[in-house]
Amino acid sequence: MSKQAPKIDLPGPALERKADLPLHQQVYEHIRQAIVDGRLQPRLRLPATRMLAADWGISRNIVLLAFEQLLLEGYLVARTGSGTFVADQPARLSAPPPRRVPVKPAEPTPRSAFRQAAEAYVLPRNTEREAIRPFQTSLPSLRDFPFSIWNRLAVQVYRGLHIQHLGYGDAAGHGPLREAIARHVGVNRAVRCTPEQVVIVQGTQQALFLTASLLLEPGDAYWMEDPGYPAAHASFQAVGAVACPVPVGSQGLDLDYALTRYPRARLVYVTPSHQYPMGGAMPYPVRKRLLDWAQQRNAWILEDDYDSELRFSGRPLPSLQGLDPAGRVIYVGTFSKTLFPALRMAYLILPDAEMARLFARGKVLLDRQGPVVEQLILTKFMEEGHFGRHIRRMQQLYETRQNGLLDMLKAIPTPHGPLGSNAGMNLLVRLPESLDDRAVSAELAKEGIIAPPLSNYTLEHRQPPALLLGYAAFTKEQMQTAVTRLGEVLRRMM
Amino acid sequence: MSKQAPKIDLPGPALERKADLPLHQQVYEHIRQAIVDGRLQPRLRLPATRMLAADWGISRNIVLLAFEQLLLEGYLVARTGSGTFVADQPARLSAPPPRRVPVKPAEPTPRSAFRQAAEAYVLPRNTEREAIRPFQTSLPSLRDFPFSIWNRLAVQVYRGLHIQHLGYGDAAGHGPLREAIARHVGVNRAVRCTPEQVVIVQGTQQALFLTASLLLEPGDAYWMEDPGYPAAHASFQAVGAVACPVPVGSQGLDLDYALTRYPRARLVYVTPSHQYPMGGAMPYPVRKRLLDWAQQRNAWILEDDYDSELRFSGRPLPSLQGLDPAGRVIYVGTFSKTLFPALRMAYLILPDAEMARLFARGKVLLDRQGPVVEQLILTKFMEEGHFGRHIRRMQQLYETRQNGLLDMLKAIPTPHGPLGSNAGMNLLVRLPESLDDRAVSAELAKEGIIAPPLSNYTLEHRQPPALLLGYAAFTKEQMQTAVTRLGEVLRRMM
Repeated sequence: MSKQAPKIDLPGPALERKADLPLHQQVYEHIRQAIVDGRLQPRLRLPATRMLAADWGISRNIVLLAFEQLLLEGYLVARTGSGTFVADQPARLSAPPPRRVPVKPAEPTPRSAFRQAAEAYVLPRNTEREAIRPFQTSLPSLRDFPFSIWNRLAVQVYRGLHIQHLGYGDAAGHGPLREAIARHVGVNRAVRCTPEQVVIVQGTQQALFLTASLLLEPGDAYWMEDPGYPAAHASFQAVGAVACPVPVGSQGLDLDYALTRYPRARLVYVTPSHQYPMGGAMPYPVRKRLLDWAQQRNAWILEDDYDSELRFSGRPLPSLQGLDPAGRVIYVGTFSKTLFPALRMAYLILPDAEMARLFARGKVLLDRQGPVVEQLILTKFMEEGHFGRHIRRMQQLYETRQNGLLDMLKAIPTPHGPLGSNAGMNLLVRLPESLDDRAVSAELAKEGIIAPPLSNYTLEHRQPPALLLGYAAFTKEQMQTAVTRLGEVLRRMM
Repeated sequence: MSKQAPKIDLPGPALERKADLPLHQQVYEHIRQAIVDGRLQPRLRLPATRMLAADWGISRNIVLLAFEQLLLEGYLVARTGSGTFVADQPARLSAPPPRRVPVKPAEPTPRSAFRQAAEAYVLPRNTEREAIRPFQTSLPSLRDFPFSIWNRLAVQVYRGLHIQHLGYGDAAGHGPLREAIARHVGVNRAVRCTPEQVVIVQGTQQALFLTASLLLEPGDAYWMEDPGYPAAHASFQAVGAVACPVPVGSQGLDLDYALTRYPRARLVYVTPSHQYPMGGAMPYPVRKRLLDWAQQRNAWILEDDYDSELRFSGRPLPSLQGLDPAGRVIYVGTFSKTLFPALRMAYLILPDAEMARLFARGKVLLDRQGPVVEQLILTKFMEEGHFGRHIRRMQQLYETRQNGLLDMLKAIPTPHGPLGSNAGMNLLVRLPESLDDRAVSAELAKEGIIAPPLSNYTLEHRQPPALLLGYAAFTKEQMQTAVTRLGEVLRRMM
């Protein structure tokens, strides 16, 4: 051992070569446990991986993989030029327990960032196999979708199909649909754009992944709202970028924290008009400062405007994009919330036509282009005014449903009462401090109630226990039954 | 008030500090109303915000916020150095004007491998905007697609839609469609699989990109057929892998060359049953050796079986996948050639169900899941036997068309006669050695004839000049006219 390497008081792990867990996972677990137990103290510098590998008689690659995971999860921190240290604060107390990676086919090389992200990501519920039940989040009221209209338009589209539409089209999407979207976001979201700036994608997820792939390098830093949208985090992780978790208050992302702590970020992920999942909105002066900073630093702002059209009352907050004088904002909108998720239709608004062409090129690598027939149907649906009418109906319906749920929740024991808001499809209900929200959520699942714990949305900024409840898709009766059970479970667990 | 500030005839707003609307919204509304009423005339210059604030006895910040909103919405316009004016036209009558500021892509860091690949990739023709003309390659005969049947099934599907299908489904694809595909490839391509090994993707491109993302690390080597399919090469480049170009002979990829030159590849891209674009097929002993090598080296073989169903005569060559004892082959099939490209439907067959789950997880990162309605229609189309019947009809039609084109091509000056084959949608015609195939292709384009040069498909192994001609989508008459012009152009250029 070199004289520079610190001596750590940690015997090598007892490795089982035939165990279910791969060796690097065993090493990872060994070190993690030592940190959690306090045997490895905060700020302690670890020996070089080469030394540890020699000491423990294992390949350096295995130690590297374990370190990588520990760095990723915040147990360790690396400082360039001075080594790897045990993190200052016990990492991930609020975050999910480390995932046991299922054993995978023997891979002689380390797994790609993409693969790691794919394996780490917690899959959303599959509503094709599992019943839609309260309080599934972010799901529109599918029963209220105007299928008779949609189907009539579909029949028209099929009857009038030109063979031109069946070959290979523009990767940016069907022209008239891009026009309809540009008009829609101009009027409704104060987004300033021409149809040439619009790129149609297959869902918000594709928008996020495409943006990450084109604008981030491995090692680039991104601000991630914490709590925030796990799928966004996963998309940036998939390209090897490094998360900078930024706490969220009632006014969205804490800009001062981010500017002080992570001034060098390349990309900012924000839900400024209705923070997901906390529900706050970023006030104008903060928006302005964020835009100024992005302009100065040439950073990108990815504005995920996932549900702003579903605002119940008051003037909708105009988009960040419309305030951006410098072309640093990439705006994402989706039809999954306003129409239905299985349609797989969302859009990016890029700062100019040239960037939109770059994004269309990127989409060519991902899937060549989107399917065409449903773009044609959606175009008619928008052009004939059905889209606007449907949104207005859903605003009223969801407001009624939110109010109903808020009333019902008065009967259950929560510390502050639920956090309603004037938009969207979900609300947050705080739990008594003594409860673990994951445990409550698991208990509710046994009773057939879906209520994701707030902890599932956090990275490193611990939140008081809370549950996220979706109300858009459920009748009063469905919700009443579920709230009664929720109250019973809470009383039992307190 | 400064002498430069215009006097405007607008009393201050009556502000209510306890109102529902924030103060700046009240000021905004006050000014907006005055513009709408005509009290503030178009082109009128407004006093500086500082002046207005002083005049009205409110904080300048409030006026600034109100102005910002009015500017955003187009009621006011700002001209640098000369102030803020009431807009010329009543705002918001039409969609917002396009953004002015041109965006410079000032990128301080190097561009990601993905971005470089996106920028380098030569986009395919857009048949939605450009007419479908001879000899566009790899395009099925869209006129012969049985739309009356497809549309009837579409109407049935729409009528019978369950709301379960409209939410979030299985990222691996609709269960019954995976079953239909497993049956189809089992019977027709000697692929051995269960439905659990099938992952439905949006086109071959998504299959290639997903495989590259999950199984390759930056720096990993892959064998690339040369000449070969540019979109495959682009997909591997996009994840930072390193191409090992392997020459192609009449029996496909030159295995000896590859084994000698690049023994350490992680992945092999092959079109073993009908090499694209040269047309050869890999004989059984070579297949066996390739599989053995992959097993020894833990390398992956990506078998792109893009058009084998369109074999005209003789027993179809069984897939590599069906010969693979070790689970090293990832099989890709597509409906773009047998049905139509805009459907965006293809599938991966993974070595086992666990790998299929990993690929489904990867697909979640790319776009969450595919659209559902067209999967339902396709399932019916396959289950009711229409798919098999359509393929058989197209085999006959394309054989007739290939024979027709081969006959016509006898009239043009080529060194060896064209290279026909017993499958597919394209053939290769050699040009006199003195000609540059790119120059010929460019000259033909001026005459409205599409004929990509073989050079577009090569990496480092130079080929004699040749053109790739697609015949599947064209009538005898269309092709005759085009062949006559092709002969004229060649004689002129020789």
